[in-house]
Amino acid sequence: METVSASTYDVHFTEVAKATIRQHARNTTYSKVFLLVDTNTRKLCLDKFEAIVDFKIDAIIEIKPGEEHKTIATCLEVWQQLSDLGADRKSLLINLGGGVVTDLGGFVASTFKRGIDFINIPTTLLAMVDASIGGKTGVDLGVLKNQVGVINQPVMVLIFPEFLATLEERQLKSGFSEMLKHGLISDSTYWEELINTKDFSSTDFIRKSVAIKNSVVLQDPTEKGIRKKLNYGHTIGHAIESYFLDSPHLKTLLHGEAIAIGMILEGYFSHELSGLSKLDLNEIKKAFLSHFKKVDFTDQDIEIIIDLLKHDKKNTHGNVNFVLLQEIGIPVLDVKVPLELFKKAFAYYKE
Amino acid sequence: METVSASTYDVHFTEVAKATIRQHARNTTYSKVFLLVDTNTRKLCLDKFEAIVDFKIDAIIEIKPGEEHKTIATCLEVWQQLSDLGADRKSLLINLGGGVVTDLGGFVASTFKRGIDFINIPTTLLAMVDASIGGKTGVDLGVLKNQVGVINQPVMVLIFPEFLATLEERQLKSGFSEMLKHGLISDSTYWEELINTKDFSSTDFIRKSVAIKNSVVLQDPTEKGIRKKLNYGHTIGHAIESYFLDSPHLKTLLHGEAIAIGMILEGYFSHELSGLSKLDLNEIKKAFLSHFKKVDFTDQDIEIIIDLLKHDKKNTHGNVNFVLLQEIGIPVLDVKVPLELFKKAFAYYKE
Repeated sequence: METVSASTYDVHFTEVAKATIRQHARNTTYSKVFLLVDTNTRKLCLDKFEAIVDFKIDAIIEIKPGEEHKTIATCLEVWQQLSDLGADRKSLLINLGGGVVTDLGGFVASTFKRGIDFINIPTTLLAMVDASIGGKTGVDLGVLKNQVGVINQPVMVLIFPEFLATLEERQLKSGFSEMLKHGLISDSTYWEELINTKDFSSTDFIRKSVAIKNSVVLQDPTEKGIRKKLNYGHTIGHAIESYFLDSPHLKTLLHGEAIAIGMILEGYFSHELSGLSKLDLNEIKKAFLSHFKKVDFTDQDIEIIIDLLKHDKKNTHGNVNFVLLQEIGIPVLDVKVPLELFKKAFAYYKE
Repeated sequence: METVSASTYDVHFTEVAKATIRQHARNTTYSKVFLLVDTNTRKLCLDKFEAIVDFKIDAIIEIKPGEEHKTIATCLEVWQQLSDLGADRKSLLINLGGGVVTDLGGFVASTFKRGIDFINIPTTLLAMVDASIGGKTGVDLGVLKNQVGVINQPVMVLIFPEFLATLEERQLKSGFSEMLKHGLISDSTYWEELINTKDFSSTDFIRKSVAIKNSVVLQDPTEKGIRKKLNYGHTIGHAIESYFLDSPHLKTLLHGEAIAIGMILEGYFSHELSGLSKLDLNEIKKAFLSHFKKVDFTDQDIEIIIDLLKHDKKNTHGNVNFVLLQEIGIPVLDVKVPLELFKKAFAYYKE
C-alpha cells in the first residue's frame, strides 16, 4: 500500500513497511537498539514483531499498560533503564504499542541525552490513525492529559494492520472514533463511508485517516492554526476522560469513547454557534451512539468536568476555545463558547 | 554594550537588556508571566530583578538551590505548580538564577504543554557565559549529568553583571573556568588576557565569552560537529563532578572546579596524542592551579571516575571520545583516548 509522506518521516504500510524497516536495519549503524513495549504488547505483539523486523534488539524495556501509567514516573523508569543498559546518543528506540507507548516512548526518546532516534510501530487502531503520527509526544500530569511533552518527529511510522487482530472490539471502536472525526473535520464523503461500514479496521480507511491527519500536520506542525481542527471533540473529550480516569467510582473510558461524547457535545455547540444544521447534528449523535453506549452523567459529574475544562492546554487567557463545525467536513477554529451552553449540551446528549 | 545575536534569539547586556525586556513586556500579550528562582536568587536577586524588569509577575515559583536538585522530581514540582497556577500555552517563564535554574527552567518551559516561551536571566558568572546560552536544557538522572533534556532556544537572554555582586569568589572562579576554556578552544590571545587578569567578571570578558560560545552554537546547534569543542575538559570534568556529587565523604565540587581538573587532564591527553607542547600543557596546569586548589584523588576515586566516563553522553558505540587541543586556541575533535592514559593523566595532575 502506498506510503504517506510526512515532513521529515514517512508512514509506511504492510509490505512496504516491512521492506523499509529491513532496509533501515541494514543501512544504519545504531550503537544499540531498544524496544519499548507494555505488558500487553509484549505478550500479544512481540512474536509478530520479531517475524517482521530483523533489527537485532539489544534489550526490551517493558512498562505497565494503560493511561494511568502514562506519567513522568514511568518516563523516569525508562530513562533510567536506557541509561543502565548503556544507551547513548546513537541508540534507537522502537515503540511497539498503543498510544501510551508511542506518546511516552516518543517523549522519552526526544529527551534522553537531548534526543535519540525513535520509530513508532502502533499496535492499536487508535495509535495507527492518531497517536503515532503528527509528532506530539508526552505524558499526563495527574488527571491532566499530555501536560508535559514536546513536538518531535519519529524516524518513521510503520503500520501493520495484522496487529489489530490482537484487539478487542471496544479497542477497535475507540480508534474508529478518531477516524469518524477525520471525516467530520475534513471530508463529508469519508464520513458517509465510515457511518455505513462495519469494517472498522479496513486498511484503506486507515490509510485515508493517516493521510488526512498527516496533511493537516504538514500544514501546521506546531498547532498555530489549522492543526487545531484535529482537536474537534477533544476539548470536552479530554476533560471527560480525565474525570473518569481520576474517579474510582466510575469505570475508565477509552480515549475514543470520551471524544465520541465530546464530538456530540461540541456538535451541539456547533449547531448553536457555527451553523451546523439540526439534521447533521442528529446524524452525528446517532452515528456515535450506534457504536458507543450512552454514559450516565450526574449533575455533579458535569460540574466537575466543566471545571476541568479550564485546564485544557488549548485554552489561553482563561477562555475556553473550541473547534466547531460549520457543516460535516468543514470546521471553524477558535470559537469561544459561553459557559451556559455547557449544561445544555449535556442535556442534549442525555435526551 | 553591544548585543550578541543568536539564531532565533539575542543575548543582551546591561542597559540594552533593560530596554529590551521593558519593550518586550509592552509589546507582548502573555496570558501569565511566571518567575522561576531558587531560594538563593529569591533572597539575593529579586530586588534587583524588580528594579530592572517591569513585567507584571503573576507568580514566583521557587526551587531548592544546587545541582542535587536539578532533577526530574524538581521538574515535576514546577510543572505541577505551573498547572495549578493556571499557566497555559501563551504563558512566559522567566528563569532567574544560575545554571541549575536556567537548565531546569528551560527544560520545564520547553516541555510544559509541549513548549512555552522562556527568558533566561543568569545571575552567576557560569550561567552568563555558559549555561544560559546555546539552547541546551535539561536535568540530571542520578549522578549522571544532563541525561534528560532537549535543545530549545529561549526568547532572549539578558545579562546584568550587577548580579555578580551577590556571588562569593568561589562561584565567580567557577564561571571563570569556562571563560578560560573559551580561550583554550578558540582564541590564544583571549587566553593570554584571561591568565593575566584578576578581574574575573569584567563585562568585556563576559561579552567575549558569550560571543565565542554563541558563534560555535550558531555553526552547529545540535552538536553534530564543531560544537563539540565546547566539551573540552568536560568529558572527564563531568565524571569528576558526578562522582563528588554522589560521594557523601567528599565535598561537592563546583562545575568550574571540576572542569578545571578536566582541562588539565585532557591537556595531558592533548600533549600525548594531538601535538600540544609540553610548554603549553604546563601553562594550562599552572593557570588552573593558580585559581583552583589541587584536589586529592585516591586510586579508588580514579577507578570509579574512569568507570563513570563510560556513561558520558558524548560517547557512542562504547568508545570514549575527547576534544583535545593541538595548541592553545586550536581544538581537535573526536580523539579516542586509550584507557591506559587515564591514570597517567591523573598522575600528571598530582605531580
